[in-house]
Amino acid sequence: MPVSHGERAAAMLAEAARHSEPGPGVTRLPFTPAHRSVLECLTGWMEAAGLSVHLDAAGTLVGRAEGRAEGPTLLLGSHQDSVPHGGAYDGILGVVLPIVALAALSHAGRQPPLPVEVLAFADEEGVRFPTALMGSRALAGQFDRSALDLRDTDGETLGEAMRRFGLEPAAIAGLARRPDTVQGYVEVHIEQGPVLQAADEPLGVVTAICGIERHRVEWRGRAAHAGTTPMAQRRDALAGAAEAVLAVEQLARDTPDLMATVGALQVEPGVVNAVPGAVSFTLELRSPEDQRRAEAAQRIKQRLQTIACGRRLEIRSERTYQQRAQPCDPALMERLQAAAGQEAPRLPSGATHDASAMADLCPMAMLFVRCRDGISHHPDEAVLTDDLDRAVQTLMRLIESPC
Amino acid sequence: MPVSHGERAAAMLAEAARHSEPGPGVTRLPFTPAHRSVLECLTGWMEAAGLSVHLDAAGTLVGRAEGRAEGPTLLLGSHQDSVPHGGAYDGILGVVLPIVALAALSHAGRQPPLPVEVLAFADEEGVRFPTALMGSRALAGQFDRSALDLRDTDGETLGEAMRRFGLEPAAIAGLARRPDTVQGYVEVHIEQGPVLQAADEPLGVVTAICGIERHRVEWRGRAAHAGTTPMAQRRDALAGAAEAVLAVEQLARDTPDLMATVGALQVEPGVVNAVPGAVSFTLELRSPEDQRRAEAAQRIKQRLQTIACGRRLEIRSERTYQQRAQPCDPALMERLQAAAGQEAPRLPSGATHDASAMADLCPMAMLFVRCRDGISHHPDEAVLTDDLDRAVQTLMRLIESPC
Repeated sequence: MPVSHGERAAAMLAEAARHSEPGPGVTRLPFTPAHRSVLECLTGWMEAAGLSVHLDAAGTLVGRAEGRAEGPTLLLGSHQDSVPHGGAYDGILGVVLPIVALAALSHAGRQPPLPVEVLAFADEEGVRFPTALMGSRALAGQFDRSALDLRDTDGETLGEAMRRFGLEPAAIAGLARRPDTVQGYVEVHIEQGPVLQAADEPLGVVTAICGIERHRVEWRGRAAHAGTTPMAQRRDALAGAAEAVLAVEQLARDTPDLMATVGALQVEPGVVNAVPGAVSFTLELRSPEDQRRAEAAQRIKQRLQTIACGRRLEIRSERTYQQRAQPCDPALMERLQAAAGQEAPRLPSGATHDASAMADLCPMAMLFVRCRDGISHHPDEAVLTDDLDRAVQTLMRLIESPC
Repeated sequence: MPVSHGERAAAMLAEAARHSEPGPGVTRLPFTPAHRSVLECLTGWMEAAGLSVHLDAAGTLVGRAEGRAEGPTLLLGSHQDSVPHGGAYDGILGVVLPIVALAALSHAGRQPPLPVEVLAFADEEGVRFPTALMGSRALAGQFDRSALDLRDTDGETLGEAMRRFGLEPAAIAGLARRPDTVQGYVEVHIEQGPVLQAADEPLGVVTAICGIERHRVEWRGRAAHAGTTPMAQRRDALAGAAEAVLAVEQLARDTPDLMATVGALQVEPGVVNAVPGAVSFTLELRSPEDQRRAEAAQRIKQRLQTIACGRRLEIRSERTYQQRAQPCDPALMERLQAAAGQEAPRLPSGATHDASAMADLCPMAMLFVRCRDGISHHPDEAVLTDDLDRAVQTLMRLIESPC
């Protein structure tokens, strides 16, 4: 019985997952022995698929298939790295499936109409060094050299780690591609969310990568003795923050395409017998539309001010992070939709991907693959073999579709 | 110009505050050099007031004035110890004011009708060793010998610390008083709350020492990616806990003589980009009426269950502490009210005091003195000299009033 594309992909993903530090799950940080060993494995598969392979100065493994004609290259890829004790699909799926697709085409004697490159970026997660997306930023000409001085927890700088890995960081600047040499970048990734599973759909076409903003919000009331301070005389910072948590949730529930989360919250003094005098929490907003996110931030700010006022609390908030939304390229998205089938639902990506950085270089689109219970960054990540098969077939159709 | 009782008390309290570890504020833990030195100071004042003084085996300094007649003794006192960096009034006020009152009576040639003892307990705060109220428990025959094996952070046991202080812990069992030898115990204490200040009253007569119960409540939802998990599919433990914090507050606002506080709250995983999967918080209820507290606990439990249910969260709660309310003795409270003046408001004590333990021995009552902004356990504790004066006069009238 012939092995399906999905079965082949599943076997390769299982093999790739073995290139890891000891478990549970997959731990494959950039510029480590596990990274080296998965690169050898990927190189073998790429070469078997007829690709010409090289490792670029940013640690991106590049496998190139020439096309029947010369012309702009279709870039397909994702990252090789995982979070500590992550799963077997996040990132590596978007490297393995294009290899399987190109191998299948090659095996069938079908050369791509134009060149195709498969990219395995070294570091998207940003776990080892406090920076991320270095391979994709390098291609987009957006790599910030100062990142080379950032250190991991062992005190080694990114630059040192790369040199020990046999790379020449000084050459990164030369990696920037000319926009006219590429058709676009398409990344296949597990959804990392529960939407496709809930919709009973194997694949989804991404509309945009959500913009993100983060705030730190400080509430100040008055710490007081929990036994001697009547309810009416309290200025309870936690009660105010609780009202805010619910207001944030309600606003996000009422606003399409907006996610809002209070993820971290600390209480002072934080003891059983004291009325909380201060609370600090984080607020994160994500939306595929920057305007919607900005309006929501404004409305939340006003709402929090009203809550603070009504409770005689002081409030101070500070935006700690902001990242614009990256809409997918309409034409490339249509081409991907045609390859995936018109029934594939469209959805935004709430998480950031290499595609975010590649959008600075060229048209970008993403294909999401359903994952079990939306779980990612965890050993329990799981994808159906049938879904892998559909994703490979989508990539094969995409590669052969007119640019 | 003659010095008022209040001025004398204020000067003595300022002097007592100097017997402390280095500041800010007063740090006077039991069985330490600061304790030793304040005992010398108190002994001098007691002797000058005509009291016969001894240190009992539990470290309680006892100053006794004989009465014109023999008969049951009126006990007046409080604790000498402070929290670290506490104030100049909590505890020590209830030792100094009776000395001032007895000195004033003695100076005026007025002997108490029956014997009076002033008690300066060693340890009420329970800061150095994980136990408290040892002096008052010893008098009530409730001292638990196993507490002698508890260690401070330096590894010294309570028993060792007491022996180094010159005490003989084995003699504690002999300190228990016979109920028929005492009239009752009256403790003067700063209110540690804002009620008297808000009511513009210098003194208050305590009705009961609140009962307390504490619970640990665990909320479990599902941690999820804050960018990829739509609002409608979340099981956000913090949002559930926030609803609970507000429900607890509302119930306590709606229930007279009930205080309810969520004082500590921890979030897991507690990061900016994750929907909280679990929350743990403390819930404390206090009321002068045990029945009211029990009913409130029941209603809160039901309400929290409903919240958890509506949000598909699991909830688990555990009672971690319980202490019954101690009503003040009606007759002794009336006698104290008469001495304080009928205008003095009545209020419950939300905090625990030596009087809680003394209630196991004899009738108990408490006089609260207004303190600035309800602040206690802080260097900013402050009491008006006029209020001290009124409190001393109240004690003088109490001592001379018929038993």
